[in-house]
Amino acid sequence: MGLEPADRRLTARLPHGVLREMAPAYVEEPRGRFHGQAGLVAAPRDAEEAAAVIRACAAARVAVVPRGGGTGLVGGQVMSQGPAPLILSLERMTAIRDIFADEAVMVVEAGVTLQAAREAAAGVDRQFPLSLASQGSAQIGGVLATNAGGVNVLRHGNARTLCLGIEAVLPSGRIMHDLKRLRKDNTGYDLRDLLIGAEGTLGVITAASLVLAPVPAETGVAMLVVEDPAAALRLLALAQGRMAGGVSAFELIAGQGLDFLAQHFPQMRQPFAPIPPWLVLIEIGLPAGMRADDALEALFVQAAEAGLVSDGVIARSGQQAADLWALREHIPLANRAVGAIASHDISLPLSEIARFITEAEAMLAGEGDMRVNCFGHLGDGNLHFNLFPARGRRREDYDDIRSDLSRRIHQMVVSAGGSFSAEHGIGRLKVGDLARWGDPARLAAMRAIKDALDPAGIMNPGAVLPA
Amino acid sequence: MGLEPADRRLTARLPHGVLREMAPAYVEEPRGRFHGQAGLVAAPRDAEEAAAVIRACAAARVAVVPRGGGTGLVGGQVMSQGPAPLILSLERMTAIRDIFADEAVMVVEAGVTLQAAREAAAGVDRQFPLSLASQGSAQIGGVLATNAGGVNVLRHGNARTLCLGIEAVLPSGRIMHDLKRLRKDNTGYDLRDLLIGAEGTLGVITAASLVLAPVPAETGVAMLVVEDPAAALRLLALAQGRMAGGVSAFELIAGQGLDFLAQHFPQMRQPFAPIPPWLVLIEIGLPAGMRADDALEALFVQAAEAGLVSDGVIARSGQQAADLWALREHIPLANRAVGAIASHDISLPLSEIARFITEAEAMLAGEGDMRVNCFGHLGDGNLHFNLFPARGRRREDYDDIRSDLSRRIHQMVVSAGGSFSAEHGIGRLKVGDLARWGDPARLAAMRAIKDALDPAGIMNPGAVLPA
Repeated sequence: MGLEPADRRLTARLPHGVLREMAPAYVEEPRGRFHGQAGLVAAPRDAEEAAAVIRACAAARVAVVPRGGGTGLVGGQVMSQGPAPLILSLERMTAIRDIFADEAVMVVEAGVTLQAAREAAAGVDRQFPLSLASQGSAQIGGVLATNAGGVNVLRHGNARTLCLGIEAVLPSGRIMHDLKRLRKDNTGYDLRDLLIGAEGTLGVITAASLVLAPVPAETGVAMLVVEDPAAALRLLALAQGRMAGGVSAFELIAGQGLDFLAQHFPQMRQPFAPIPPWLVLIEIGLPAGMRADDALEALFVQAAEAGLVSDGVIARSGQQAADLWALREHIPLANRAVGAIASHDISLPLSEIARFITEAEAMLAGEGDMRVNCFGHLGDGNLHFNLFPARGRRREDYDDIRSDLSRRIHQMVVSAGGSFSAEHGIGRLKVGDLARWGDPARLAAMRAIKDALDPAGIMNPGAVLPA
Repeated sequence: MGLEPADRRLTARLPHGVLREMAPAYVEEPRGRFHGQAGLVAAPRDAEEAAAVIRACAAARVAVVPRGGGTGLVGGQVMSQGPAPLILSLERMTAIRDIFADEAVMVVEAGVTLQAAREAAAGVDRQFPLSLASQGSAQIGGVLATNAGGVNVLRHGNARTLCLGIEAVLPSGRIMHDLKRLRKDNTGYDLRDLLIGAEGTLGVITAASLVLAPVPAETGVAMLVVEDPAAALRLLALAQGRMAGGVSAFELIAGQGLDFLAQHFPQMRQPFAPIPPWLVLIEIGLPAGMRADDALEALFVQAAEAGLVSDGVIARSGQQAADLWALREHIPLANRAVGAIASHDISLPLSEIARFITEAEAMLAGEGDMRVNCFGHLGDGNLHFNLFPARGRRREDYDDIRSDLSRRIHQMVVSAGGSFSAEHGIGRLKVGDLARWGDPARLAAMRAIKDALDPAGIMNPGAVLPA
């Protein structure tokens, strides 16, 4: 494939040996909604090389699209419009630079997968508590650029909370050395948190120091049957009060999700028959000297007395705990097998959730025959509110109402003080949503910051803000 | 007092009734290092009035110095150079707008004192876990503007971690409505965290939604004798491992501090005689079903077997726990009575702390006769490393070496990957330190952001960055 003149001017400026062969995987994203153009791919070995790449792109006025594991769900990693960009892959920056077990801190490069980071922490008897379905591919750089969430945010926070410092290349091509390992540091503006979640539009993160957590002496898992989401929320408050912050995960599961599982993963053993309409999966981590199943039993008894739960199973072994989690983790796979009409990654103030679910389902009932699978990280107010065809109908049958339904659902969420993108970010998919629903003063400040730090607009143009 | 013409142009534009009588308290700070000029004082009643004040100041090119409780220790609240500013006091914005006990969220205005916020949370059986010596005067707006820390950061994080959303007036005079109550919200740049810790230089926070925590079912307090800071850090790791994150506070106390207490607060009962060289104060919060003193005893036994502790007392009542805390909380008062040569609010990576203390004390021993009181939030790596005159000498005797000593101590801290301002911020006191030790790329980005959001430079000029 011959190089265009602009590419030739650019390649002459790049560090030696930094270019990689273009491959389809560099221009794809999991949902297949965005397809990137085949440009150059550069994979720097360190921050200096990454900085040289960005300076070269700035000089040649070529856009830079940073790329981690490519698992993002909103197209932030794929630029499909405008001149072909350079894809800056972090795949060669895979060093775990340091682990400080006694400090409970780990310094890793951006290309380390989330799973490798978690395993490295486990190797020193600590945990890196961020956990996602895509952790085998997702890389720390992307996890931070999108401020990823997952199942343990309730207890340990999202990616932002778990990051103490970053090394990053700014759009100017300068390296920001801010790889501190400090819990407290009030020396100026919080650029770390500004770059985290900026989806590569204000620079590229090349390394990070991450917080580790102790492995709890005792962990326990239970799946409990609740009457409705309102009861689930009261159960959450009860559990939080009893466990002194020891609730690690609190996941809402709709019977619809288990129904999809039964169809597409019939080999998985289901704990309840018939499938109840609503369940929660709770995980707790406790101090030495307590038994987790005793604590879960005591919680169950109190919750049953309060009329919040009607049935439940408590895992009696690690295997049983893993089996309960496997049910939760297979719901997205079952969803994919069914084929969603539309999916919504939303969050709401906890006290608005029950009403939202009721009202949204009522709204949808008036719009046609469909199935709703509402599940997610209830403890964080984060729901995946996904719509599926009625039995015997196909996804395509809903093509004409899909975008209107999503807009109405997002409008209901925003009106209730919620977010139309709880954990996936804006990417390119939701740029219009942000422009529509974002606070105008905040949007103006975002634009001013983008223009100040990246006046040429070369960093991931078209993501988060319009190009 | 007559108004200057510039003032008259300004007052004509201000909302009716917003001006307050100037009083000395508006231009003072606790350490008496900075004295502000007597300008106008405006106290808006809501964000709209605050925005109108800022627009008026922008039009008249008058600087705005936001003011909360005025308890900051680095002069961020006092502008002593340049034309007299308008002081924007949040004292009238004292509403607790909402408390959502089940959500564990509270929405408060910037002028609410930290103590009032804590009491409001306690009123619904929750806690707002930020706790500072100055909480009776410190206001939420200032607490956020300086990203305050305190004794519970180890478990609950600093002010930034405890804030879900803000309402703020930007330098443009526009109100940013971002008062969300969401644990997860990935919709664009993190302007909330940018304004938090920006010390009023990028806007004024007028309200915030804050995270509440459950009140632990069981709490316990102990004071334990350790051989040295290294042993204290190993004890911390042991405690964290046993308690599954249940350690709420872990404070280092030097025997020197208890010695100062014995001199200046002789009525306070001291638990150990003779005073040991190093101690820690530990507080834990545990789930229902455990006894905190059992947990502390088990910790003590294991720590003693490992040679980490040699003596200790475990509080057997709430009164005993309060008495132990009172010792820790009176150390700053005793320090003030003695009169420090210099004080340093520093943080270090945990594994660098023991070496730093040894090396810094060795360095000081070569510089003259003085006493060191090193104490603070060891669990967060945050030490107050304060120097005092030798017995029989006065503070003034050290005038010629004071700034050199501080610079050398800060240099040692920075070389060890630490921070020269862990929790107090930059204010006006440490602008030169930040320019000297800050990462150049980060400083350039900070300046670009300041210029982009506040092109006229009216917001708290001279704080954080040079005016």
